[in-house]
Amino acid sequence: MSFPKRLQKQLDFIMRIDDLKQIIRQTLLISDRRQENDAEHSWHLATMAILLQEYSNVEVDLLRVVQMVLIHDIIEIEAGDTFCYDKEGQIDKKAREIEAANKIFTKLPSDQAIHFRKLWDEFETTLTPEAKFAAALDRLQPLLQNFRTDGESWLKHGITRKQVIERNHHISEGSKLLWEYATWLIDESVNRGYLKD
Amino acid sequence: MSFPKRLQKQLDFIMRIDDLKQIIRQTLLISDRRQENDAEHSWHLATMAILLQEYSNVEVDLLRVVQMVLIHDIIEIEAGDTFCYDKEGQIDKKAREIEAANKIFTKLPSDQAIHFRKLWDEFETTLTPEAKFAAALDRLQPLLQNFRTDGESWLKHGITRKQVIERNHHISEGSKLLWEYATWLIDESVNRGYLKD
Repeated sequence: MSFPKRLQKQLDFIMRIDDLKQIIRQTLLISDRRQENDAEHSWHLATMAILLQEYSNVEVDLLRVVQMVLIHDIIEIEAGDTFCYDKEGQIDKKAREIEAANKIFTKLPSDQAIHFRKLWDEFETTLTPEAKFAAALDRLQPLLQNFRTDGESWLKHGITRKQVIERNHHISEGSKLLWEYATWLIDESVNRGYLKD
Repeated sequence: MSFPKRLQKQLDFIMRIDDLKQIIRQTLLISDRRQENDAEHSWHLATMAILLQEYSNVEVDLLRVVQMVLIHDIIEIEAGDTFCYDKEGQIDKKAREIEAANKIFTKLPSDQAIHFRKLWDEFETTLTPEAKFAAALDRLQPLLQNFRTDGESWLKHGITRKQVIERNHHISEGSKLLWEYATWLIDESVNRGYLKD
């Protein structure tokens, strides 16, 4: 039996991105404290977008935010996850990720390849309200999970308050209220010894 | 520092549903063949919805489809996953899941509790075009993964072609073309010995 080439391309891509479930991040799950993966993280952000959209500084197109967070890490299937406090890894991160984007999105039919690439570029350049809010969620979620896991991942890597603020202060560009909450959480993490001062 | 009660409720819920990452399904990942979890599955469906919406029998509101698949399994945090071919588990499944829905969604601020409950009810009753398409994706994804993992999970449980057709033929109500593809895939699975005839 033969099916449209377009469908076959889409299904091949859908099976290819199954590997996102194996890209491991530094953030720990709250209950069993294993490291989460990119697919779990992306699901969490998309669900957070539905629930927290009211805190965006500017009204956002929810569907675009959700699409952005669903696909923002797909390039890591090719490029791998770079720990946000890994200075060396950060140096060539951008180049590696652009190469990965060129490689992976182009497996889709061209209109959808363009759609995904546009969403990813929008997320990465963080200029639109949707991208700013998506980026805020992407930063907030690990903060929340680090806090609920007694800073285990921060302590393991010897992370300081300054590093966390530098990494996360962009939350305020997406949501002033969520950044206010995050700063409280960071202060409280220092008080509790989860983060070095 | 004090924050709105509403925000605290939302963040508590967001942290509660972290446990979706630990609800294990029977479907295996393609590369390392471990069992996937509900969060990974939900992410996969949401991304599939973006890519395959054109095959819905009727035009759908993509945002509603995506929201439905993102939250459709959250009740399993309370109720657990019931393997679709487990006859005994199916008997009280509905009652257990409704109890779970009453318990978990009500942790949200009431407007959002209603929103999530409505989405879940819509998904479960499968009457709208959006729910039919969401249900089709929910059935198609494990089929695709079972096929790509040489039927390992089907063989483990001694699943037959008849069982798979009974379980999945509703795909056609969401998408005739995707069901056509699924029937080809089921036939091919029998030919290859992944499924009993």
